[in-house]
Amino acid sequence: MRKLFFILLVVFVSHAQVKNEQLNLMPWPQKLTVSPAIFLLNKDFKINCTGNPDSRILKGASRFLRRLDERTGLFFNQGFVAKLNEFPEAQLQINCQRKGKVGLQEDESYQLSVLSNTITINAVTDLGALHALETLSQLLQNNGTEFYFPSVEITDAPRFVWRGLMIDASRHFQPVDVIKRNLDGMAAMKMNVFHWHLADNQSWRIEIKKYPKLTELASDGDFYTQEEIKNVVKYADERGIMVVPEIDVPGHASALLTAFSEIGSKTDGIPYAVSRKSGIHDATLDPTNPKTYQILTEIFDEVCPLFPAAYFHIGGDENNGKEWDANPKIQEFKKKNNLVTNHDLQTYFNMKLVPMLKKHGKQLMGWEEIMTPAMSKEAIIHAWRGVNEGMEAAGALVKAAKSDYKAILSNGYYIDLMLPVDSHYLNDPMPKNVAFTEEEKARILGGEATMWSELVTPLNIDSRIWPRTAAIAERLWSNDTVRNLESMHKRLKQISFRLEEIGLTHIRNKEVILRNISNYQDTKALNDFTNICEPYKVYKRNGGGKKYFMFSPLTLFADACAADASDAYEFNKAVNLYLENKSLANQKLVTDYLKKWIVMDLDLIRLSANAPLIQPILPLSKNLSLVSKQLLLAIEQKQSINKTDLNALLEQINTRNSADVELAVYESLRKLVE
Amino acid sequence: MRKLFFILLVVFVSHAQVKNEQLNLMPWPQKLTVSPAIFLLNKDFKINCTGNPDSRILKGASRFLRRLDERTGLFFNQGFVAKLNEFPEAQLQINCQRKGKVGLQEDESYQLSVLSNTITINAVTDLGALHALETLSQLLQNNGTEFYFPSVEITDAPRFVWRGLMIDASRHFQPVDVIKRNLDGMAAMKMNVFHWHLADNQSWRIEIKKYPKLTELASDGDFYTQEEIKNVVKYADERGIMVVPEIDVPGHASALLTAFSEIGSKTDGIPYAVSRKSGIHDATLDPTNPKTYQILTEIFDEVCPLFPAAYFHIGGDENNGKEWDANPKIQEFKKKNNLVTNHDLQTYFNMKLVPMLKKHGKQLMGWEEIMTPAMSKEAIIHAWRGVNEGMEAAGALVKAAKSDYKAILSNGYYIDLMLPVDSHYLNDPMPKNVAFTEEEKARILGGEATMWSELVTPLNIDSRIWPRTAAIAERLWSNDTVRNLESMHKRLKQISFRLEEIGLTHIRNKEVILRNISNYQDTKALNDFTNICEPYKVYKRNGGGKKYFMFSPLTLFADACAADASDAYEFNKAVNLYLENKSLANQKLVTDYLKKWIVMDLDLIRLSANAPLIQPILPLSKNLSLVSKQLLLAIEQKQSINKTDLNALLEQINTRNSADVELAVYESLRKLVE
Repeated sequence: MRKLFFILLVVFVSHAQVKNEQLNLMPWPQKLTVSPAIFLLNKDFKINCTGNPDSRILKGASRFLRRLDERTGLFFNQGFVAKLNEFPEAQLQINCQRKGKVGLQEDESYQLSVLSNTITINAVTDLGALHALETLSQLLQNNGTEFYFPSVEITDAPRFVWRGLMIDASRHFQPVDVIKRNLDGMAAMKMNVFHWHLADNQSWRIEIKKYPKLTELASDGDFYTQEEIKNVVKYADERGIMVVPEIDVPGHASALLTAFSEIGSKTDGIPYAVSRKSGIHDATLDPTNPKTYQILTEIFDEVCPLFPAAYFHIGGDENNGKEWDANPKIQEFKKKNNLVTNHDLQTYFNMKLVPMLKKHGKQLMGWEEIMTPAMSKEAIIHAWRGVNEGMEAAGALVKAAKSDYKAILSNGYYIDLMLPVDSHYLNDPMPKNVAFTEEEKARILGGEATMWSELVTPLNIDSRIWPRTAAIAERLWSNDTVRNLESMHKRLKQISFRLEEIGLTHIRNKEVILRNISNYQDTKALNDFTNICEPYKVYKRNGGGKKYFMFSPLTLFADACAADASDAYEFNKAVNLYLENKSLANQKLVTDYLKKWIVMDLDLIRLSANAPLIQPILPLSKNLSLVSKQLLLAIEQKQSINKTDLNALLEQINTRNSADVELAVYESLRKLVE
Repeated sequence: MRKLFFILLVVFVSHAQVKNEQLNLMPWPQKLTVSPAIFLLNKDFKINCTGNPDSRILKGASRFLRRLDERTGLFFNQGFVAKLNEFPEAQLQINCQRKGKVGLQEDESYQLSVLSNTITINAVTDLGALHALETLSQLLQNNGTEFYFPSVEITDAPRFVWRGLMIDASRHFQPVDVIKRNLDGMAAMKMNVFHWHLADNQSWRIEIKKYPKLTELASDGDFYTQEEIKNVVKYADERGIMVVPEIDVPGHASALLTAFSEIGSKTDGIPYAVSRKSGIHDATLDPTNPKTYQILTEIFDEVCPLFPAAYFHIGGDENNGKEWDANPKIQEFKKKNNLVTNHDLQTYFNMKLVPMLKKHGKQLMGWEEIMTPAMSKEAIIHAWRGVNEGMEAAGALVKAAKSDYKAILSNGYYIDLMLPVDSHYLNDPMPKNVAFTEEEKARILGGEATMWSELVTPLNIDSRIWPRTAAIAERLWSNDTVRNLESMHKRLKQISFRLEEIGLTHIRNKEVILRNISNYQDTKALNDFTNICEPYKVYKRNGGGKKYFMFSPLTLFADACAADASDAYEFNKAVNLYLENKSLANQKLVTDYLKKWIVMDLDLIRLSANAPLIQPILPLSKNLSLVSKQLLLAIEQKQSINKTDLNALLEQINTRNSADVELAVYESLRKLVE
């Protein structure tokens, strides 16, 4: 009888309809219906591909199969999806009408239907089918003993055609394996543009066979060979991702000028050198020198064929004009050619690049500074500046769309600023407060998260990109009405684990950093502390680029911390609940944290006796412990507290001048004091 | 006064002499003297290189500098060691007499002297100086607020010239980044030979430009381009490591024969195909066919120039002779050429390869099966078989050394067998029970850990190689009198953390696997369980190669477990202590574990409701919990226990048929019952 009851229970559990809210899909599909049936997985599960797809779907389906097998441990009989129509009776049927071409104008839509005995993916192109497989992956459920997919009908397609991630490989080199694992993350989040920032003041990272001195003199030996570039481009293409290279000119050019001093604008005769610092530099190409264009032509002639994408990013940002102003020859040239401002001169320079790229079938794009009245309307404007630069948020995007330019948005998606995910998630490429015509709307291609690498190495870069970029991916894919923060946070937590599973390291590498700080002692207290601390935001950590050289250690406490500290998020919720209703249960939610931090401080002090790297965080921990003790007395013992003293302590915490982190529970503690 | 006391204390702590036993050096140096002085580190610390070294010392010193900076967070002013004699006043002076040449016959010795204000490294070659830097790295100490090196005098040199690690990239592909991080680990452990197993029945992993079909048909797209090979060889050379390629012939040849059926030995007309299974295969090259030698010549002509090493491994193992026996043409050939056995025929084949390799300056080496009476004495014998193969341990090594062959030992260093580190550590390439002449001793070149990859992927491979291989490295470098197990275990624990710090993933990836098993729930209970479970040893997990195909999931509980389960090691010590002296303190050491496992079982049951992959380990956990409860009653409540019942339970545990793991505390539990 007990056994029968158990069987009935299992059947009941298996067949209980999964609710939309239980699904951890990201980005959320355009249209989704869930039904009560389930598709049960077993080792006979097979995949069949039909239609006329590109062979990338076979590789993609094989990857899906292997990952599903690793996730379920079912030992599937099918090892690979080797060719079209290999298993006509397979439970999962993938049909694509035609080969997809990776790029902006391609159909990425798909339909996914899960019934109790078959799963069908229909897509115009294999690119859509790849997206469908990512969705199906995310649908996996279990009832404790078996794995299954809930029955669903999904019709899906992206809202924007440009869903990008930029990685700056110049400030800190990011080896091919770092790039590849991030491409995997992008594919999982249905992103389709990888923007590769390959040269800047700090280094030149791409092999130029005609000019080996570029990497010899300006890469410290860390660069991508052309074979590696091709390999990455292929890897991206197999995942439906277009790779857009960036060679930043005419500013950000110290590395290029380290190899070619003769095309620089300065007149002091001191050779250029790669920079080890952050911030805006003076080094600028000489737009009046024919050799500048000759060398750029030769470089572009090698770089362009490596990238099939129809777009080429020439940077064009942050040219401070100092070298131009100080160079009489350049001033003379401006006068002669009736170029009034340095912007005019830069446009003159930019326009010379247009045909050099067009020759290779490439459309020029650049950061928003390239948008001047004389600039070609064919250029794509990459909007990046906002309030941190004293400008209106997304101002350039709006202006571009209203001035006949196509544009993409990065302002609001600067993930290196360590801002909370909410701010990125709610940042829409189609600002609600602006009235756009349909044509103007159509010119807004999408957006791009930007990972500038002043403060990241292969060890910590993933924790700066993920999981926040997944939320940006949802903003760029899903309907603009999908903007519930609580739902996003809940799903993002699961997605974050998934991203680790496919190879990203944003969770696992934290422990490596903490072990270094603890000098190989127990890391629990340090980990607890990272869960309420966040690295300095915006440009504070490296204010003026003065603290961190490109070879400075990034294995410190701030590097183990990330945006959206998890316990801070929970504590803030707990404090709000408690202040609404001071029930004992709500009180406990708050006081458990306070007690945890008192113990944590004692542990940190103990550990610090054998770990100098813990010393810098002790003052913050101590103040937190003191505040926690006072608040505990007030909350549990109903003792009256000295608000003035406590506020003074809180202000000490808020001076935020220790260990490059800020205490993410500060605001909530302040609420408790008041 | 308190402050003064504090200052005195710090000074006292700083200057307290570090004892030899406190140092976590591995491999242990030949000669070491510690003095009371210390060398205090600060941000002005600089390195200067002098003499006539290879430029690899500049890169090595730069890596050392960056790692030390990351470890101490001191923000050193010096970014790179860019050229010789750049900072004559630097505190660390590295002098090398001449350029080292990576290989077997080079001087790898060094002297390291740390005084209170200077550190001096003297070495004949830069290879010795690199070793010195690794030793210096390991010497780092701290007093809670400052980092320092203790004053030491070290004179060091390796005991054996061949200190190798083999990685099999055929069964499961290991991308370049996996190889590179393992080369870093090898360098840290002063190992100097990387043996790269590039082809086998399961795949062909090296680009052959003349025959692209080799990788097209037999690699699933996962192979090393020749540029990647060169890049790895350079990376290894910069770390003092020689790379020896292996192309396994005439057996282990399914992949080669998938591309070239015409040079196979079988007569059934069915095409060869890459194998997805483990175990010994029949596919064997036809030694009577001239085309066999033509194709091998063409392949060797491409492969040899990629590797500067003077050695080339031709495999030669496990040729079961079935295809030869069944092929009348081959039988005819044997008769005609007076080749009595298949061994004779294989020697005929091997001898044809000698000049093909000699042409490229390479000496042939192979697994012990190549050692037949007619084999050239110039060949190097790689001894691998032992008791698991029904042979005497290291028998072939002894025979080789006594028969004028140079030899290296891998029997006893098969790290894929998941045996405890102790067994590898105590396995000496110069067996104590054999009387060798000095000439015979000189022919024993050293040893090599072998990482066969039937059951490893990039996710779990490091946990199969490290930290055990560090103990093997010590066996091969240090004096044979260095064999204290307790000291080795204590040092290995620290070294294991260091290896993670330089990029290996043997610790961090465990959590990724456990999260998968737990279905993203809390992993504490699972982790506790991994600390007392070990994967099946020797060939049991994949008995007969029948369970795991090359595409089967290796993300299971056994993959999160490793040899030398940490809590099992501690529990076993605790039980021994308790049985010697049943003090309350010793009792608590034991009962704390028993209680932990009871709670663990409850947690696992709870987690399993939402995680099917936990189900397979529940029976083992349940039995352990039952035994623990009984033992607790016996130990704490002095209740008498039913030994028969308990022994029956223990035997259930010992049937070892669940989830591919065995309970590593079984023997200790048995002791408690008795």
